[in-house]
Amino acid sequence: MKKKIRVIHYGLGPIGIETARLVFRKSMVESVGAVDISKDMLGKDLGEILGLDKRLGFSVTENAKDLFAGTKADVVLHTTGSRIRKIYPELEEIIRAGLNIISSSEELLFPLKENAGSARKVDALAKKHGVTVLGTGVNPGFVMDALPLFLTGVCQDVKKIHVERFVDAGTRRYPLQKKVGAGMTERAFREQVAQKTLGHVGLLESLYLVADNLGMSLDDVNETVEPVITPKVVKTAYFSLRPGDVAGIKHTAEGIKDGEKIITLDLRMFIGCEEPYDSVHIVGTPEIRLRIEGGVAGDQATAAILVNSISAVMDAQPGLMTVKDMPAAHFTR
Amino acid sequence: MKKKIRVIHYGLGPIGIETARLVFRKSMVESVGAVDISKDMLGKDLGEILGLDKRLGFSVTENAKDLFAGTKADVVLHTTGSRIRKIYPELEEIIRAGLNIISSSEELLFPLKENAGSARKVDALAKKHGVTVLGTGVNPGFVMDALPLFLTGVCQDVKKIHVERFVDAGTRRYPLQKKVGAGMTERAFREQVAQKTLGHVGLLESLYLVADNLGMSLDDVNETVEPVITPKVVKTAYFSLRPGDVAGIKHTAEGIKDGEKIITLDLRMFIGCEEPYDSVHIVGTPEIRLRIEGGVAGDQATAAILVNSISAVMDAQPGLMTVKDMPAAHFTR
Repeated sequence: MKKKIRVIHYGLGPIGIETARLVFRKSMVESVGAVDISKDMLGKDLGEILGLDKRLGFSVTENAKDLFAGTKADVVLHTTGSRIRKIYPELEEIIRAGLNIISSSEELLFPLKENAGSARKVDALAKKHGVTVLGTGVNPGFVMDALPLFLTGVCQDVKKIHVERFVDAGTRRYPLQKKVGAGMTERAFREQVAQKTLGHVGLLESLYLVADNLGMSLDDVNETVEPVITPKVVKTAYFSLRPGDVAGIKHTAEGIKDGEKIITLDLRMFIGCEEPYDSVHIVGTPEIRLRIEGGVAGDQATAAILVNSISAVMDAQPGLMTVKDMPAAHFTR
Repeated sequence: MKKKIRVIHYGLGPIGIETARLVFRKSMVESVGAVDISKDMLGKDLGEILGLDKRLGFSVTENAKDLFAGTKADVVLHTTGSRIRKIYPELEEIIRAGLNIISSSEELLFPLKENAGSARKVDALAKKHGVTVLGTGVNPGFVMDALPLFLTGVCQDVKKIHVERFVDAGTRRYPLQKKVGAGMTERAFREQVAQKTLGHVGLLESLYLVADNLGMSLDDVNETVEPVITPKVVKTAYFSLRPGDVAGIKHTAEGIKDGEKIITLDLRMFIGCEEPYDSVHIVGTPEIRLRIEGGVAGDQATAAILVNSISAVMDAQPGLMTVKDMPAAHFTR
């Protein structure tokens, strides 16, 4: 019998919890530890926190270092934050413990551009300790980057790439509805954009991952964050919007070459989006027009791809990797 | 400057020619030899055969062994046939020459089931000589296998997979229109099906590639080949069909588990297909409904993925690999 892969959960927010529940249902991986800073969770058995009928035999700790020292594990599923600046000390500690990392950090998807210094340090340290570090997720990590890149595999030529992701925030949990600016005044929305406290993290990373793999040297990159204004009355469990209110966000990133937009990523998340979808249009030979009706559901998909990436990461070379440097994740039992 | 990857073209049928033309347009690969048995081509410069304005400095030979002995190369793009039984001696000769292989052979996509003995021999020989052998293409190789597998990467659970590919044979070249049975009587069609001279090669390989990667142990596999009968008058450059005539083929493969069809691959290629498309429906968590309007154009795409696979094959471990064992191909310059 093949040995199970031992997993430590680092971060038990909504994505971390969903990920841990999924690991519990898999036959080839098992949870052996969990780290979080929430006082409500400390000392409780992970099975209890996940709402399982059984105890898993270990409790949540805030002391990662002691956990790593006392527990044999293979890989850490890391879901504590988006920004490399914030998570860097955590990554360093995990790598020094000789553990592989799969992280939902949006910036870690392709840090070689915006966080090049940290990326080089993570890569060198990972190689030194013989572990693999991967940032992945559904967005960034799949819909707006890995999927269009995958499609270009059957293209003789690629002139332009246009990706759209339209998400109905109204069906999502409260923090997401709030995060996209629903119910704000337009003025407050624009102030938060200016302070960079509003907007999707990772859109530029998606753009750079695509451009880098396709060998597209961009002259310029434009990023814009605009409010989506509702034209009609919309109600959710949490918000009641009137015509003219902010319903959500339109976040775009464009890669420019010789005055032309050769890569466009158009992400809209708002309340009242009646026909959510993901689409990819590749202008090339052959031309490809792909559409996913309803779109790929974010939270479920992110937990899935973190767990489905485990076996490829276990087999990968040491160092900081991107999702395009290893065999693509597929569903695993 | 990075050294160019040196390619030998083995087989100069329509796909081989298209592939060689594409290599000519790439900056990181260069053609250094070509093998074909066609008397019209022997001794002619490859540039002339491709209709280029320039000579490439070497001519087509039928003697692969001498070519391999006298020419430094890295990889062979192999497009001589579908069946492993037929191409096995060629593969062996290429491997013994120490060259990597990327082949359009449909059976080579996933030979571990239907051609397990040959597959093991190819794998052992490739490992001994330190080369990688890959079978790929658009179908099999992409639309009905690698693409659905790629999508399951964001799934927590996969219950069923349903893939459709509807191709308008009327817009394709004459051999393909003929190959799908257009213009035949239904009786002649069924006779050829019984003799296995009609039908798409590789559909079972697609099914096994999907099932194997998803860990789905199938109780049974059904394969059917039926004529598509035209309900109306249709004309192409080559055929004029009346209601009741055979317009093409419906080829399906189904993977059965506990009495349920858990994988269905439905391929139709016929004259008069007004809305060609590729679609993938994954019944799982989350559910995914993907559609490619117009479908992925076959001949262009196959040449593209052969060439786009070169760098991944150069970096891969030795042995017989499948498209899921290495980073997915993406467009390369």
